[in-house]
Order: sequence, then C-alpha cells, then structure tokens
Amino acid sequence: MIVIGVDIGGGSIKGGTVRDNGELLDKFSFKIDPNKSQEEIILELADNINSFVKSHHYDEPISGIGCGIPGIIDSKKGVVCSSANLRWVDLPIKELLEKQTGLETRITNDANAAALGEALYGIGKKYQSSVMLTLGTGVGGGVVVDGHLLEGNEGKGYELGHMVIVIDGRLCGCGRKGCFEQYASATALVRETKHMMGAHPDSLMHKLAKEYGEVNGMVAFEAAKKHDIYAESVVNNYIKYLSEGILNYCNIFRPEAVILSGGIANQKEYLTDRIKTYLEINNFGYYGNGIPKSEILIASLGYDAGKIGAAALFYQKDFIK
Amino acid sequence: MIVIGVDIGGGSIKGGTVRDNGELLDKFSFKIDPNKSQEEIILELADNINSFVKSHHYDEPISGIGCGIPGIIDSKKGVVCSSANLRWVDLPIKELLEKQTGLETRITNDANAAALGEALYGIGKKYQSSVMLTLGTGVGGGVVVDGHLLEGNEGKGYELGHMVIVIDGRLCGCGRKGCFEQYASATALVRETKHMMGAHPDSLMHKLAKEYGEVNGMVAFEAAKKHDIYAESVVNNYIKYLSEGILNYCNIFRPEAVILSGGIANQKEYLTDRIKTYLEINNFGYYGNGIPKSEILIASLGYDAGKIGAAALFYQKDFIK
Repeated sequence: MIVIGVDIGGGSIKGGTVRDNGELLDKFSFKIDPNKSQEEIILELADNINSFVKSHHYDEPISGIGCGIPGIIDSKKGVVCSSANLRWVDLPIKELLEKQTGLETRITNDANAAALGEALYGIGKKYQSSVMLTLGTGVGGGVVVDGHLLEGNEGKGYELGHMVIVIDGRLCGCGRKGCFEQYASATALVRETKHMMGAHPDSLMHKLAKEYGEVNGMVAFEAAKKHDIYAESVVNNYIKYLSEGILNYCNIFRPEAVILSGGIANQKEYLTDRIKTYLEINNFGYYGNGIPKSEILIASLGYDAGKIGAAALFYQKDFIK
Repeated sequence: MIVIGVDIGGGSIKGGTVRDNGELLDKFSFKIDPNKSQEEIILELADNINSFVKSHHYDEPISGIGCGIPGIIDSKKGVVCSSANLRWVDLPIKELLEKQTGLETRITNDANAAALGEALYGIGKKYQSSVMLTLGTGVGGGVVVDGHLLEGNEGKGYELGHMVIVIDGRLCGCGRKGCFEQYASATALVRETKHMMGAHPDSLMHKLAKEYGEVNGMVAFEAAKKHDIYAESVVNNYIKYLSEGILNYCNIFRPEAVILSGGIANQKEYLTDRIKTYLEINNFGYYGNGIPKSEILIASLGYDAGKIGAAALFYQKDFIK
C-alpha cells in the first residue's frame, strides 16, 4: 500500500508518497498563492496530486491521501473548521479532494500528524505509547497509544499547549491565562531572553544575538553553554516550566516516551539532559514508587514528520489493548 | 455473562455480581482486619468469593473477578505495587485470586474502575468519551474513550489529581508543588474554609460548622447559598481552581462529558452550574471556535460505581475508532 501524505503549512503545501513501512518515496511541493480562495488552493492541490499520480508508477497502488493541517480540524467530517495561519474557515477538504482525485482522504491537525509519524516511523517506533510536544512559535502536541492516534471529540482534543500551569499567569492567545505554551514555546524563550538582555548589557547574549542577526531561541542556550550567568538563569527557568508541563503529561498519559520537536529541540542532548535532571529531582511519576519512567527523546524525522505522519493516518492501528 | 466486581477500600472490601448490562445482582462485604497480612486478606477475599459463588445460582456462569484498588497498580501484571491506604506492597493479587478461585481476575486503580462504571453504565453511558474526577480527600480520575478505559504504561497513568496548575504552589503529598489536588479536593476546600472562618468570626460558617459538628466540605457551600460573603469568597475561589483544571482536561482529552463524583459532587446542580458559568466566560475549548462543549455532569452510580466499574473491566470495548 502507498499513500500520499500532505503537510499543509502557512506558506506552502508539501506532499509525498509514503509506503506502509514509513518510507518516503517521492515528493512534491508548491507555494500557496495568497490571492487564491481556500477552494482554489485545494483544487490546485488536487491538480498537483493528479499529475503526480499520473507521472509516478509504483509496484503498489496509491490508495489514499492523508493531510496534516494547522488549525481546528474536524477529522471525523474531514472539515477544516478554522485555521488562523491559513485564514481558512469551514473548508470541506475531504469532500473536495475525494471528488477531484477519486482517492479516499483523511485529515488531522498538523501536530497530530507529526506525532503519529514519529510514533510509528521515527524515534518513537520502539515504544508502545508516546506524547509528542512541538516547541515552536507555540506548543503543539499529539498522543499515540498502541499505534493509534488519540484525537478527542470531533478530532479537536490534545491541544497540549493549552494546559494552564500558572493560574492567573501570562495571557495566552486562546483567551486563558498561564497556558503551558506561554512558558515553553520558542516565543516564550525569546521573550525571556530579550527581557534578561535588556537588564544586563554585559551579557554574552548581546554578542551572540549580533552574530545570529536576531534574538532567537538559540541565544540563551548557546550563551548558557559558555556559562553566561544571565543566560543560565533564562535557560534554567525555561527548563523548569517545560519540565513541569512534561511531568504533568507523564502523570496524565504515563507514556513510554516523550518526544520533543520544533526549533528548541535542536538543542538535542543538552535539552533532554537538563529535562531529565529536573525530572529526577522532582520525581513523582518519574522515578521510584514503582512508576515507570518516560524516556525523553528528540524527534528524528525532521521536516518529513508531517508528510509521513499524515500518510500514517492510513497505517495506524486499531486500539485493542 | 456475569462478573464479580470488587471494590477494595481502606477499611472494608465490598463485592457484587454484575451483569454485562451493568445490573448489580447480589452483594457481599467484609471488614479488613488490620492484624492480618496482605496475603491473608486476599485469601479471606477468595474465601468470601468462593462461598458467595456456591450460594448464588444464576442463569449465566460467573466468568471472572474485577477489582478496583486504591494505590499504584500494575494492571498488566495484576500486581498492587503500593497502596498507602492499605499499606500493601508488591502484592500479586491477580495470581492469588486466580489460584484460589479458578476465576480470571483483572485489576485496576479504584478511580479508574469508578470512571469505567460511570462511563459504561452510569451518567456517562450516552457519551462516547468521558473524564471522571473524584473530588474527595484527594482528586482521583479516569478517562474512558469509545467504551475503553485508558490506563497508560503498566496501567499507572491518569493520575489526574497530580497535574500542576500553580507552579511553586502548595506542596503536594506526591512531592511536587501546586498539584490540582491541592486546590480542588474536599481537603483543600476544608482548609480554605477554616482559614476564612479564622479571619472572620462573624461568618455564618461558624454556625453551620457547629450544626454539622465539624468543618466539612458542605460548610462553605451551604453558607454561600445563604449569601454569607466570606463563604461566597471561599466557594468562588474553589470553583475557579476546579474549573481551570477541568478546562485543562477539556483541552487535553476533548471529552463529550466531564463527570464529577466524591463528597463535593453532592452539591449537584449548584456545583455544575457554577462550573459551567466559569467555563462559558473563560471559553477556549469550551465555547465558540467550532470546538464542541463538554457536558459537566454529576456521577449517578453512587457507592456502587466501584463494584460495577471493576466488573466492567470484562465488559469494556476494544478501542477501534
């Protein structure tokens, strides 16, 4: 079986053929024309898929289309309810693609797709259950148990960035105060980095920010590695909030693995070692008491996770344990 | 099919025969002798079950034993890892009961059992998914999706009381600071009630506490209903923290229903109306945006939820959606 996995982003749409062993065979992509209507963009996607199918011949038939889409998705009905990034509203993408291509179409939230891809074919594949957190502009997430993606009512759950961890804390775009996303996203790290830099003109972070040409999610981490005390303070604080959120999800889902992706995850072992140390010290649900630890891992599929995971909507298992 | 459901509590063990439609047929119970070893108590339970089976004859065979047990349970292996209430450690209860009774035995955490009972046979039965929160001495919980209990690795997840909602907040028995349980349990409500009473000798709460003979979880609620401003403040604050935790679980699981049980749930509509009002105002994931609301409900099985839910370990569905 071969499925076309489609990763819809803010500026472009990327797709590729994926085998049921997770192998990504051939790719295509095109930029989203901001002057086109949402329906016109989906027709363009369908055209791309149809010509891709005509020009690629495999030993097995192409049996479906899986799409990962940012925003609020009704995965049962196959409708994009709303997508702030894409400015799409009430778009029946499943119906449109099936009509234009003749291929069965399944859709989910982009964070869910990436979580499913990593769980089935990436770093999570040797674990029975995993929670994936994407630490980028916001915090996205997805949960896979026994090879099956959990989605919630109408496919609209698992908004893992929108768990309040600081009552009356920072105002979040969602309307609540103190969401995990406000403390564990790259955006939050950059905000705290700038704040600390403003108070300490002698910090090494100023030099690094000049080298990078901006204050980004790397500035505090790289300066902390060189023992800049202000950067260490920013990183320590970031690790604390991130780890408390991870520990919440360990207690809730008790996954075999927690998988981190997004820009911050480029810190790799430096990040996971710091988190593991925090979890060892603040240990309920992580150490002792006969409670199994969750491995803390970095995602391995990179930019292909979305495509592979979207295709995996056809490869996930029924949940029978 | 008929299954014996067993609800193991701190002071007594209660059991009963349960049909696959959730009907509770006949009951038994006995007090736990504090002088007996953990193995002796399980042998006594087996003896009770064996004589119960001999003396009760049904139109269908008794096919198994389901047990709900407080503490950290390895449901896969059938072992009680530790139970603070019972002072049990590493007790292979499944093996012992199966050997003594010849009946297949399944076990889970008591909060999970109650959640499964309410989901399949109680107030949750018309919903596809539910999160149950037990607001008692602590906060326990369980999650059921498509008729299937989610349990986590080794059956040790879904510790819903141990989600930090106040970073650096009140120290919890689990070792972390600011757990949901520290703000939403009956214990937390009583603590805040006493605190407010201490500061305000003129509060109506003093009179009510005398009538009840103690400061319990009803004092603040009943005085608030009579418009005592100090009690209203205690209740408002309690509702806020409880609702924030519920909203977290709505965003995480997006369940069709949230079911409340335990002492505080005796406030019924007064409680759920207050929570619903809070959720409407702080509305991400609850109202608008195309995101479906979760119903806020009071558990309906009362003290039988544990027995019925434990038996339901044999009646739950494979998760195939």
